[in-house]
Amino acid sequence: MLIVMDHYATPEEVKAVIDAIEAQGLTGQTIPGGDRVAVGILGNHGYVDESPFRSLKGIRDFIHVTKPFKLVSRDFHPEDTVVRIGSVEVGWGLKPIVIAGPCAVESREQIFTAAHAVKEGGALILRGGAFKPRTGPHTFQGMGYEGVELLAEAGREAGIPIVTEVMRIDQLERVARYADCLQIGARNMQNFDLLKEVAKMRIPVVLKRGMSATLEEWLAAAEYILSGGNDQVILCERGIRTFERALRNTLDLGVVPYMRTVTHLPVIVDPSHALGIRDLIPHMARAALVVGAAGVMVEVHPNPSKALCDGPQSLSIENFNSLMKDLAQYWTGKGE
Amino acid sequence: MLIVMDHYATPEEVKAVIDAIEAQGLTGQTIPGGDRVAVGILGNHGYVDESPFRSLKGIRDFIHVTKPFKLVSRDFHPEDTVVRIGSVEVGWGLKPIVIAGPCAVESREQIFTAAHAVKEGGALILRGGAFKPRTGPHTFQGMGYEGVELLAEAGREAGIPIVTEVMRIDQLERVARYADCLQIGARNMQNFDLLKEVAKMRIPVVLKRGMSATLEEWLAAAEYILSGGNDQVILCERGIRTFERALRNTLDLGVVPYMRTVTHLPVIVDPSHALGIRDLIPHMARAALVVGAAGVMVEVHPNPSKALCDGPQSLSIENFNSLMKDLAQYWTGKGE
Amino acid sequence: MLIVMDHYATPEEVKAVIDAIEAQGLTGQTIPGGDRVAVGILGNHGYVDESPFRSLKGIRDFIHVTKPFKLVSRDFHPEDTVVRIGSVEVGWGLKPIVIAGPCAVESREQIFTAAHAVKEGGALILRGGAFKPRTGPHTFQGMGYEGVELLAEAGREAGIPIVTEVMRIDQLERVARYADCLQIGARNMQNFDLLKEVAKMRIPVVLKRGMSATLEEWLAAAEYILSGGNDQVILCERGIRTFERALRNTLDLGVVPYMRTVTHLPVIVDPSHALGIRDLIPHMARAALVVGAAGVMVEVHPNPSKALCDGPQSLSIENFNSLMKDLAQYWTGKGE
Amino acid sequence: MLIVMDHYATPEEVKAVIDAIEAQGLTGQTIPGGDRVAVGILGNHGYVDESPFRSLKGIRDFIHVTKPFKLVSRDFHPEDTVVRIGSVEVGWGLKPIVIAGPCAVESREQIFTAAHAVKEGGALILRGGAFKPRTGPHTFQGMGYEGVELLAEAGREAGIPIVTEVMRIDQLERVARYADCLQIGARNMQNFDLLKEVAKMRIPVVLKRGMSATLEEWLAAAEYILSGGNDQVILCERGIRTFERALRNTLDLGVVPYMRTVTHLPVIVDPSHALGIRDLIPHMARAALVVGAAGVMVEVHPNPSKALCDGPQSLSIENFNSLMKDLAQYWTGKGE
Repeated sequence: MLIVMDHYATPEEVKAVIDAIEAQGLTGQTIPGGDRVAVGILGNHGYVDESPFRSLKGIRDFIHVTKPFKLVSRDFHPEDTVVRIGSVEVGWGLKPIVIAGPCAVESREQIFTAAHAVKEGGALILRGGAFKPRTGPHTFQGMGYEGVELLAEAGREAGIPIVTEVMRIDQLERVARYADCLQIGARNMQNFDLLKEVAKMRIPVVLKRGMSATLEEWLAAAEYILSGGNDQVILCERGIRTFERALRNTLDLGVVPYMRTVTHLPVIVDPSHALGIRDLIPHMARAALVVGAAGVMVEVHPNPSKALCDGPQSLSIENFNSLMKDLAQYWTGKGE
Repeated sequence: MLIVMDHYATPEEVKAVIDAIEAQGLTGQTIPGGDRVAVGILGNHGYVDESPFRSLKGIRDFIHVTKPFKLVSRDFHPEDTVVRIGSVEVGWGLKPIVIAGPCAVESREQIFTAAHAVKEGGALILRGGAFKPRTGPHTFQGMGYEGVELLAEAGREAGIPIVTEVMRIDQLERVARYADCLQIGARNMQNFDLLKEVAKMRIPVVLKRGMSATLEEWLAAAEYILSGGNDQVILCERGIRTFERALRNTLDLGVVPYMRTVTHLPVIVDPSHALGIRDLIPHMARAALVVGAAGVMVEVHPNPSKALCDGPQSLSIENFNSLMKDLAQYWTGKGE
Repeated sequence: MLIVMDHYATPEEVKAVIDAIEAQGLTGQTIPGGDRVAVGILGNHGYVDESPFRSLKGIRDFIHVTKPFKLVSRDFHPEDTVVRIGSVEVGWGLKPIVIAGPCAVESREQIFTAAHAVKEGGALILRGGAFKPRTGPHTFQGMGYEGVELLAEAGREAGIPIVTEVMRIDQLERVARYADCLQIGARNMQNFDLLKEVAKMRIPVVLKRGMSATLEEWLAAAEYILSGGNDQVILCERGIRTFERALRNTLDLGVVPYMRTVTHLPVIVDPSHALGIRDLIPHMARAALVVGAAGVMVEVHPNPSKALCDGPQSLSIENFNSLMKDLAQYWTGKGE
Repeated sequence: MLIVMDHYATPEEVKAVIDAIEAQGLTGQTIPGGDRVAVGILGNHGYVDESPFRSLKGIRDFIHVTKPFKLVSRDFHPEDTVVRIGSVEVGWGLKPIVIAGPCAVESREQIFTAAHAVKEGGALILRGGAFKPRTGPHTFQGMGYEGVELLAEAGREAGIPIVTEVMRIDQLERVARYADCLQIGARNMQNFDLLKEVAKMRIPVVLKRGMSATLEEWLAAAEYILSGGNDQVILCERGIRTFERALRNTLDLGVVPYMRTVTHLPVIVDPSHALGIRDLIPHMARAALVVGAAGVMVEVHPNPSKALCDGPQSLSIENFNSLMKDLAQYWTGKGE
């Protein structure tokens, strides 16, 4: 940490800062600049707490050099992590995976049709929500455990592993009995208790980026899961909230190659929620692959116009098959 | 709902939309504009689902006139709701309340000192966190139930009701035995399961605005609580995330008088988290009262420089007493 | 326009609105909903002004169906516009163009080296700034007219047309004598007087999106140029300002396929300014092509580590040649 | 500046950085941390350019300690600047001023009525726009020079100085002959050429904050004016663009007390544009005063429902008189 002193700070104030640093068993080193002095703190391992210094006079700013995460950082773990969902491998530079299926499980017929269709189309993992986070209480909230069981049955029959969202701690154990991978949604990215409990389980997790989460916060959320002992984490970019509302959210594709330099955990992209318009999905799915994403997740529904949620952004099975043909051209096998 | 047709939509396409509306038992009425036709939907009660219309040709846009909430709306409940926490009343136009106390309960001595000090200073409710949502896993996470019990004991001794944050469903019952009011934090504003469970309880709730929540989403979150049968909800503005990072968040004071026209639920303001700098708090607390907020919540610590969390934004007891004297000048008793 | 009445609006208030509509020579049609009445305005051509209605009682909201632009809209001009810069054609579905060159013209040697290099590498247009908009006054502000003349000379020698930014009206005429295309920068997107003057000229314009401009505002800015008689406008997405600051800006690639449905004007993408990190540029340039952009603009400098501006995001000539080989794989000639 | 090295940076890489620093005539000092080394640069006066270091290996980050502005900073100029407009003084801690008048000058009658009314109501400065920046070209663009002359005549007759917006450099001289103070609008805050020209004039300037300008950018824009020799600058907060669109913009009142610690230039607040709703203006004007703003600027129109721009947010003369009575209670004369 660097403590930047005021332009007018007195030598006594600088000395008091250094004394306070030494009282912590650390070393303070003055860095006299042109306009002001800064004091560097030496000897720390990990994040330095500002609190012992806050009440001192003459301080203008604290600059943290150490980040609030470590286990997720490529700096401390240079090799790519490979996440295994059933027999599917997800990782930077591996063949990108496609996760597909309806926003919500709605009926046996719907999910079985979807499961077979996405499997045949080339998806490697089936998605489907049973517990749906909805903005208001007066809309369809999902089929619950019955939905989880139908999803699992459909996946088994079609021969494809499944991922589904969990929203509360008391769902974890029961859902994990059926699912191959759990999803933590954007609204729960900082539901730290949920993260801590998922951390104790030995099951892969898709951790969506919160709608207004910085990369640092997203990585710190993943750090909760890794520090609990579970390193099978896939990060999923799904669009952020900005001033622009012509599309639902702003898909932040630039983070994909950037995150690859920062973390060993794979990043996939969900274009469906950010765009909210069916015809735009294939464009952005394609773009996700060419920026190096480890996979994409898309919403597919046997009959989008009857979908109980996210209909406008759901691909039909025909759309999906055409997307898969298209995507095949954009992965060159170079792993970059 | 209004369905706006494309400039080039054919009469057949318009007719297909009207037929689809009538298939729902509703009425469609064309509104021929200068450049295009729109079709209004009549006869609906509440929000109209777009899904039956999505696959139709020639549609440019859906415009929703009905909002995703109703119970929280002043439109349907014109009288102000009064929330009662112990003997304290919180409501638009009532004498504004002050909630004060440390970010986190840290020790018996700390919370007892704080409780007596804020009570004597004029606070009507004592706050203190026992379960702390922290960005990264490597920082102080709160004292847990022991903290809740200490807070309750301190409040009882000082004769002041308490509010504390809950983060998981399985905490609700046990915490509610001690607390006079529960707080749902900004990161849990859309933790819909937590909202549903709190809705079943007969205890007042402070619902903080999510860091990137629109007013509509905030109101829809409160709607979850009201539609479960609990109308004792206080909304708390605590700053939103914007591009500006000189201060921690942007305190959105303009929403206070605006929300007063929209909802009967009282809105209070927490300036501490948005500003993150002690010296700015009194300014914004004062401003909150003059825009008509039903109260303010501030962080007070007997020794801010030793605080385990939020030290830089915590007021000392001396600061707090001076703030309270200041605030007394800004509430005129007119209730606006 | 749709005028939404309050839930409690009286029949007299509704009638007063209809009377006010008729006083404008238009027709008002009531649309009775479940919870409230709305009044549609019929017979207007273009945007309806709210002002005659604002003082009326019982109105909750105005909903505009007509947009503040028309000439730029595909709705009124379905065919793609082709912009011609020298012999280069820019348009949706045409072979995407590459504009390359240094952030700023710095010296004769620098710009001549750059011109030859980008031309040989396959760029179709040379860029270079002579007037530089800089956040603070104490940094390099560009070479001015001398820079424009050097750029023109370099372009002529290398046989490649040039584009350069103009910042003030009194520069227009003189710069247009040398340049094949003018650029309006992000900070000037709503410098309406500059737009009006450029509109009068018969020269192609690259109009960058403002850092916080909505698509509607961007299109309305282009409307200024078209309504002045100049339809040779290329829109350039260059990243928007969001809460995320790990990268300089958030490149909003999703707008490219969306804008293609909305406007006939071509959209190109400048990834350099949004990312600010050299190694990320090729990823996003590639992504821009696969989402259908009409071209990309990148910063190339013979010696990035000596660049007087934007060094960290400038490609070396070697980087550029490698990017061009890479991009060739991502344009399939299908025009979609 | 602090150069943060990679965790894996070799001693040779660190040495190369220090050598490069010394090649600039500066001194490099290593600061060995727990996880990585940083190198501080000593001996610089003002901002250090990163460019000589960018191409070196093993560098993770550059941290700037020096800001891109100096003259506007309280750090280098501790005493409050007082801006004089006619005989009116504007400064931190002085009696707050009120600037009032219509969005646009529309006619002789309108501006004369407004001038007398706001003067009688207690406003110290009259505002009125003659050149209007409008999102689209198809709306009222102002009366031009005729508007400026009418405004000046009205101000002279009513005995009140005037402020009006300039948008282009060639307007400056002519407008300055009539106006007592020039306004630079939010959209022109980074129109650096306009700033440079205004800097050469000896006339007070109101510099509005750009819709997405950080405080640092706003201060750097003011630095352009001061470094050209004109220190008579008033900063005006007018709301920023955020994800929240229920109100037009988010009025960022927290910056007022913060800016007071950072700059000696006075900050005033314009609540009209941020809120866009007449009834909310008095609340926020009041709040501006209690957070210490040096003044407020409000839109007042003799007949808001007929206003050619910004009608919904314009106060009537009656509203204005009532606001002025209200505000008188909120300035206590303590200067804080």
